[in-house]
Amino acid sequence: MNPSASALLTDLYQLTMAQTYLEQGMEDSAVFEFFVRRLPPRRNFLLAAGLEQVLAFLSGLRVTQEELAWLAGTKRFSLRLLRYLETLRFTGDVDAMPEGTPVFPHEPILRVAAPIPMAQLVETRVMNLLNFQTMIASKAARSVLAAGGKPVIDFGLRRAHGAEAGLLAARASYLAGFAGSATVLAGMEYGVPIYGTMAHSFIQAHKEESAAFEHFAQAQPENVVLLIDTYDTEEGARRVVALASQLRSKGIDVNGVRLDSGDLADHARKVRRILDEGGLRETRILASGNLDEYRLRALAAGGAPIDSFAVGTAMTTSSDAPSLDCAYKLQEYAGRPCRKRSEGKATWPGRKQVWRRYGPDGSFDHDVVTTLADRQEGEPLLQPVMKGGKVLAPSPPPEAIRSKVARELSRLPEPFRQLDECAPYRVEISQVLRDLADSVDRTV
Amino acid sequence: MNPSASALLTDLYQLTMAQTYLEQGMEDSAVFEFFVRRLPPRRNFLLAAGLEQVLAFLSGLRVTQEELAWLAGTKRFSLRLLRYLETLRFTGDVDAMPEGTPVFPHEPILRVAAPIPMAQLVETRVMNLLNFQTMIASKAARSVLAAGGKPVIDFGLRRAHGAEAGLLAARASYLAGFAGSATVLAGMEYGVPIYGTMAHSFIQAHKEESAAFEHFAQAQPENVVLLIDTYDTEEGARRVVALASQLRSKGIDVNGVRLDSGDLADHARKVRRILDEGGLRETRILASGNLDEYRLRALAAGGAPIDSFAVGTAMTTSSDAPSLDCAYKLQEYAGRPCRKRSEGKATWPGRKQVWRRYGPDGSFDHDVVTTLADRQEGEPLLQPVMKGGKVLAPSPPPEAIRSKVARELSRLPEPFRQLDECAPYRVEISQVLRDLADSVDRTV
Repeated sequence: MNPSASALLTDLYQLTMAQTYLEQGMEDSAVFEFFVRRLPPRRNFLLAAGLEQVLAFLSGLRVTQEELAWLAGTKRFSLRLLRYLETLRFTGDVDAMPEGTPVFPHEPILRVAAPIPMAQLVETRVMNLLNFQTMIASKAARSVLAAGGKPVIDFGLRRAHGAEAGLLAARASYLAGFAGSATVLAGMEYGVPIYGTMAHSFIQAHKEESAAFEHFAQAQPENVVLLIDTYDTEEGARRVVALASQLRSKGIDVNGVRLDSGDLADHARKVRRILDEGGLRETRILASGNLDEYRLRALAAGGAPIDSFAVGTAMTTSSDAPSLDCAYKLQEYAGRPCRKRSEGKATWPGRKQVWRRYGPDGSFDHDVVTTLADRQEGEPLLQPVMKGGKVLAPSPPPEAIRSKVARELSRLPEPFRQLDECAPYRVEISQVLRDLADSVDRTV
Repeated sequence: MNPSASALLTDLYQLTMAQTYLEQGMEDSAVFEFFVRRLPPRRNFLLAAGLEQVLAFLSGLRVTQEELAWLAGTKRFSLRLLRYLETLRFTGDVDAMPEGTPVFPHEPILRVAAPIPMAQLVETRVMNLLNFQTMIASKAARSVLAAGGKPVIDFGLRRAHGAEAGLLAARASYLAGFAGSATVLAGMEYGVPIYGTMAHSFIQAHKEESAAFEHFAQAQPENVVLLIDTYDTEEGARRVVALASQLRSKGIDVNGVRLDSGDLADHARKVRRILDEGGLRETRILASGNLDEYRLRALAAGGAPIDSFAVGTAMTTSSDAPSLDCAYKLQEYAGRPCRKRSEGKATWPGRKQVWRRYGPDGSFDHDVVTTLADRQEGEPLLQPVMKGGKVLAPSPPPEAIRSKVARELSRLPEPFRQLDECAPYRVEISQVLRDLADSVDRTV
């Protein structure tokens, strides 16, 4: 069973509401927008991600015969609903910010316009995909910024929340600027460059650490990165030096060593010295082990001679902010704008556009959120991506999104690129939109 | 593509190590154990979960032709490795604690014994499955304990980390004692009871809140739970009262109302009064909206007239501890016990058993971790579940695991059942095991 593609990966209320809508003949077009209400602590921006998977999900939306039979067997649903589901295809329109766009609170990232039972049914999965990848890309971008140009690699699959989380975290972090991932399937599915070294178990399975190093180097002479902290890090480095000349005589270079425990900065300095004194100036040092953007910043600031970093759990679970305060809200039904007014959860009504305004040097100045009809200055961020259920253009390749992200991050004013929270980015709600909200409130 | 079943949902280094092992003729049996190094903050115990999915993954382990072709295309791997992968089936033995067993640091939850390239290859996914479900079941159990017997329902799919996370969180929380989930697919796949009400959008799509309530009640007269906080919670409750007599004349009862915002305790009191005064004493109150175990405890302690709770994001992401400090470590290779000694990450060597000792009243007293050969008093927690790649018995149905969990939680001494951190549960490392560790250290 592949849960990723199932139309039943949804909340029960989407089905019970659909049943009611059909009963009442309410199949007019509904407009939902996905947005984030507020940034998680310690985030100055988010990076929109997940659109490619949303479009694939919507394009492939089907209720299988097996699923229909199960639904019927629950005796909860009307025949009318079951018949509707049997032939259901997604026929709506989608507008969205391209993946990799920096985004701020109250800005719609994606808009769905479709008959209400359909727009509602897809809510859960659309949110599930956008929340996760946007959260991960945003977290990963922080490590990229903190590493100051040194490559960062995703090692997080083992503690990601299940299969899809691991795979999509590899994708989202690559989009955000990671150099690649250890996850093999992410290489196959998304063309993410894959990286790997060896585990402590590999060393332990050998009676001698040196023998483990030698065997590994001989079996993959093109990519010799040796894990040296299983017993004693500096001793491990000395063993690498001792082995290196022997390997060199066979034409094999030791490309790198990995440190995975202890005081990484201190070990890195000692190991660098041992390697240099042993003539291994070209051998790089990779550091891993409970790293996050703060440790990367500290290691970079302290000038630790580390050449690349592997970040695992902290990134792949977005450990300090494992969810976004995001929503997918009805903004219009049957041509009538509407809004939610629940305490602390009020939304802006109607179909909206976000206009980004840049300073003279091309850096982000502020954004304006307004109605679709209200043309503003700047760059409109939401673009049509699906019409009548048909995807308008293939999703850009990951490399194109990476280039976009790099460009956009460089246009973010400096305070937003820092790990510490700065004053919020200015997101203006236009007067036209405020007037619309007032007029909606008067009609309820 | 179904990532859940792919053998390539693994780290690259598992393949490069396998290549080296094959090159060296190292295919002896390796013993790996999965355990947690330390409890996350604010946890007094964990509940083992995820074994059923691990066994399914191991039983179904295959590298597909498409995957083989992709691997070959990378030019990274030897022909020998590709041939090995082509016919790879999992042929190892697995011992494990049954799902729903309370577990503490340093206790092996699962042991794999298999030829080393195979035992290594499955590491990433085994960890990925056990880390997630154990973490979620443990978090969910806290909500169950805090709710003091009132039903708790999972509403978390939209912010779970992808498809599998949402689905398996529904399963794991149900095992831990949740009453059910909103996730439809969890009903179909795991027999989890499904629950649902309506969304704010449903109310907004109608011009009048009362009309929305009425339509919903007519379309599913057996399960009328109305969301009353879209505009004004108490006004919503009065509308329910006004509608109820009219519905009653059609034989329809209003089973419940849902509160989703604001001060839930205060709203619940006011709404209860309005419902009672309106003759709706049987109408239950369901509360949702950013709930976690602490809010449940506060609501329960304050005597808020809430009958059931829906918990979403906090549970489904284990928001305060979104990963476990868990490991899958080599403990023996070719009959030779081994251990990792890296700073702060040392492990106990060899195949181990956990013996649980109970007090005279049947409550947990302490556990002893020892070698497999060293028989101790108490109950041995690890049991054989797979031999030579064959599952020994079908996994117990979720209801059986739920019963086990309820029984086990009742045997946990009171301090461990509280949300606040208590003194750690006593896990004794036997002298035999300490001696083994010393003798292993002397051989390296």
